[in-house]
Amino acid sequence: MSSLHDISWADYSALSIEGKVPLLARPDGMPFHTLFAQQFGRKELDRICDLATKIRFIAKSRDGMDFLQGLLSHKRAMIYFTQPSSRTFLSFLSACQILGIKTGEVRDAAVSSEFKGESREDSIRTFSSYFDLIIMRTQEKGLAERMAHALSQSDRPVPIINAGSGKDQHPTQALLDIYTLNRSFEKKGGLANRTVMYVGDLARGRTVRSLSNLLTNYEGMRHVFVAPPQLQIGDDIVAMLKARGNEVVLSDDMRAWLPRVDAVYMTRIQDEWDATKGESARIDTSRFKIGAAEMALMGANAILMHPLPRRDEISTDCDSDPRAKYWRQMRNGMWVRTALIAATFDCDDMILAWRSRQ
Amino acid sequence: MSSLHDISWADYSALSIEGKVPLLARPDGMPFHTLFAQQFGRKELDRICDLATKIRFIAKSRDGMDFLQGLLSHKRAMIYFTQPSSRTFLSFLSACQILGIKTGEVRDAAVSSEFKGESREDSIRTFSSYFDLIIMRTQEKGLAERMAHALSQSDRPVPIINAGSGKDQHPTQALLDIYTLNRSFEKKGGLANRTVMYVGDLARGRTVRSLSNLLTNYEGMRHVFVAPPQLQIGDDIVAMLKARGNEVVLSDDMRAWLPRVDAVYMTRIQDEWDATKGESARIDTSRFKIGAAEMALMGANAILMHPLPRRDEISTDCDSDPRAKYWRQMRNGMWVRTALIAATFDCDDMILAWRSRQ
Amino acid sequence: MSSLHDISWADYSALSIEGKVPLLARPDGMPFHTLFAQQFGRKELDRICDLATKIRFIAKSRDGMDFLQGLLSHKRAMIYFTQPSSRTFLSFLSACQILGIKTGEVRDAAVSSEFKGESREDSIRTFSSYFDLIIMRTQEKGLAERMAHALSQSDRPVPIINAGSGKDQHPTQALLDIYTLNRSFEKKGGLANRTVMYVGDLARGRTVRSLSNLLTNYEGMRHVFVAPPQLQIGDDIVAMLKARGNEVVLSDDMRAWLPRVDAVYMTRIQDEWDATKGESARIDTSRFKIGAAEMALMGANAILMHPLPRRDEISTDCDSDPRAKYWRQMRNGMWVRTALIAATFDCDDMILAWRSRQ
Repeated sequence: MSSLHDISWADYSALSIEGKVPLLARPDGMPFHTLFAQQFGRKELDRICDLATKIRFIAKSRDGMDFLQGLLSHKRAMIYFTQPSSRTFLSFLSACQILGIKTGEVRDAAVSSEFKGESREDSIRTFSSYFDLIIMRTQEKGLAERMAHALSQSDRPVPIINAGSGKDQHPTQALLDIYTLNRSFEKKGGLANRTVMYVGDLARGRTVRSLSNLLTNYEGMRHVFVAPPQLQIGDDIVAMLKARGNEVVLSDDMRAWLPRVDAVYMTRIQDEWDATKGESARIDTSRFKIGAAEMALMGANAILMHPLPRRDEISTDCDSDPRAKYWRQMRNGMWVRTALIAATFDCDDMILAWRSRQ
Repeated sequence: MSSLHDISWADYSALSIEGKVPLLARPDGMPFHTLFAQQFGRKELDRICDLATKIRFIAKSRDGMDFLQGLLSHKRAMIYFTQPSSRTFLSFLSACQILGIKTGEVRDAAVSSEFKGESREDSIRTFSSYFDLIIMRTQEKGLAERMAHALSQSDRPVPIINAGSGKDQHPTQALLDIYTLNRSFEKKGGLANRTVMYVGDLARGRTVRSLSNLLTNYEGMRHVFVAPPQLQIGDDIVAMLKARGNEVVLSDDMRAWLPRVDAVYMTRIQDEWDATKGESARIDTSRFKIGAAEMALMGANAILMHPLPRRDEISTDCDSDPRAKYWRQMRNGMWVRTALIAATFDCDDMILAWRSRQ
Repeated sequence: MSSLHDISWADYSALSIEGKVPLLARPDGMPFHTLFAQQFGRKELDRICDLATKIRFIAKSRDGMDFLQGLLSHKRAMIYFTQPSSRTFLSFLSACQILGIKTGEVRDAAVSSEFKGESREDSIRTFSSYFDLIIMRTQEKGLAERMAHALSQSDRPVPIINAGSGKDQHPTQALLDIYTLNRSFEKKGGLANRTVMYVGDLARGRTVRSLSNLLTNYEGMRHVFVAPPQLQIGDDIVAMLKARGNEVVLSDDMRAWLPRVDAVYMTRIQDEWDATKGESARIDTSRFKIGAAEMALMGANAILMHPLPRRDEISTDCDSDPRAKYWRQMRNGMWVRTALIAATFDCDDMILAWRSRQ
């Protein structure tokens, strides 16, 4: 039966970021690492989405929860967050708990500083000695790949999941965004030939970069990037999308485009990356916010997304609008991460075959 | 069969603090929130005490522990403590573990500060997306009610338990105090027509306010408030107790009253609430402490309580006296919280019906 | 059948450190505390090693993991680390999880400071109220013994495991070192008549003191202490070893001894104990480091150990040499701690009797 592990590991290997990480093709018994969004092709995305939907369904019953919690109750995971994010942390924690996985954690600077005396490789190898899975989030670009490579040379090469690495990658965020789009358009003709508008700080947010990239796996996508000129999307992304035959529009007029798109993906200003303090505050972002008036411009079948946390980009007035999907999107993150972890440990076939005993 | 949920939700609704929180009557399927002590009437108090006693008995055997841990093993709880209290935290954690509930936590300032960029409502809604129960402790008065109300308008209105909110409310502390009194007088004629003496910082401690209030559910109670004049109980409590037909005495002479009371409830000076630093230190509190000499004045059946942590209000000499109940009182907190959580998820009837298979 | 509890409690009692702690002989039902390395004699060491090996074997199968996780699933442990050590923390956490024990934790200064208002005895008694086992690590010498004594006078005298107390004791580190030596020489004639060389900061590291002490339980051991003169091993240890008939050599020439020893135990410079800042940095430690050139001098059957974390005492070049045992040594810590906890709760016979159902 087909499984997530049918992924082409030659492709995987070829995707190594900046040529620095020689990711090897995966022989039998080698771990499945989740390192960057681009390693997932259409086949893998469909598999993850199917799994997430099935898990969501199974989890509705006590019977089903008992089944899920029994799947990996013999496994233990280390959640190692040197770049804090309680939201992502709790999402991964919940995913582990749904599958019965026990967890250990490092998630604040005070505790993680103890590891500073030793090399990152030694810290990760320590975790691999005690745990069966490492979920890591760091400031450092490319670290997950480097650690996966280092572990591959030890005798406990446990799988690594990148839960965010600097401005660089956040592959599970991209997966949950894809799943939310998929789920939203499932009964409305599917996710193809859609227009997605991204709004806000497109220069510095990694989610839009990863999501637009993954959307090239679907046919006939159009991308509308709406931002103040200083925060517009990078040329590299525009070039990549065009090279793959996707339509691209750059604009600074959100209201003009609102009636014409299928999905609106809002983002917050990432002022934590400001080169000089207060830099972002001087940019006029007033025309890149959504309230009741803007919702009125959106199509009846269009959806509104946001990776959260939000500031004032989306007014709380919008929360009860059925087109607002950001809370569901967050909960989808838990289901997608559960699916990903299950697949990492080869439970995907067992889950898809599950039938209630009742 | 009767259950905790027979509570009158019209009354519940009417109890909203300061009129700010319109708590609705609870239709089927709505969550049971624990927000303030006064929501519990005699019927609910008896139910919680019976449940706690049964759980305590069940937990003695391996057989019983397996039963308890299976009850809610499919549930997950968020313990969100922005006002730290390791004692209360560990008590709730233990209660969750006894019922098989998996937990996530935020319990220090460093981690919880991440949520500062977003509104409290968004943080709580995040937790409700991942978890089935939110146990929260905050500095902010009325926050638990406000959050329960906010969640009631979302599509995941999970139950909230207030684990302490500012100087205001600490309902589970009041429940464990009631349970300790109940248990102590169970075989000595029950908890009615008793004289309870409260000693220490009665002006600023919330536990005495809540406990005296709940004790009006029992017949013929007499309340003796003993404190330095500056730390005496508030007029509002005195008026409330008198309005409900309870006898009230205010005094600053602990030793005179010691021989005449059934229970002594000691509290520590809450100097963290001092308006000016060192204010409390200038008050003479030497006559509001208990040692061997004071124990000698107490009746043979009287009991000594303290919410802990203690400083020097109770000498360690008293610890081995069988009338000293404060350590048992603390452990009672774990059992009462287990009972409350079980009732919140409608496991109360199942627990009360349990018989050992051995 | 014999069990760990056959330990002579008269001896145990007599071993009280510096005469300050009157540890009582253990009647039936009294808890088994792990307080200092010297409480373990040869019989107990063999038992722990056998248990660890069996557990390691059992844990290889799903079947076995289910068995182990069911053994103590009704128990809860408090991991109380006021002296942080994430490595030791995660090792104990993993050990608890392998046996199905649920855990509560205090492991950073911010949280543990809350307990400062009360006495250490009250804090520990609080933990004993909620939990069935206390694993504690502190800066304070002799604290674990003092707490075990205090609990022995309460009505919940739960077992205590010392996970490191100041410069003084770290008994489970000594146990895992013994187990690593045992395991390494198991098929090569066993752990007797061996020469062990200790290298580095022998003056201030507690692991070498404890390990050399425990090795006197094995026949014909020779100890070579290699360090700069300022960091040489204490006279008390030399005297103790000689009194027990062990050969002792003091040297500052590591390379000369490398070809002649069975085990090399490297340690890092413990500069956190420097009396004046930078004191250690002025010592020439260049001749007390191991790289490929030094490995070439070691015998083919010799082994290289390190308690980790390392700095530059051992080059990463050595990691893939089969004689380098420090990563295995760390993982051994998890197995030994699992064995110790299992024995503490009298599961040792059940584990040794386990046969796969498959």
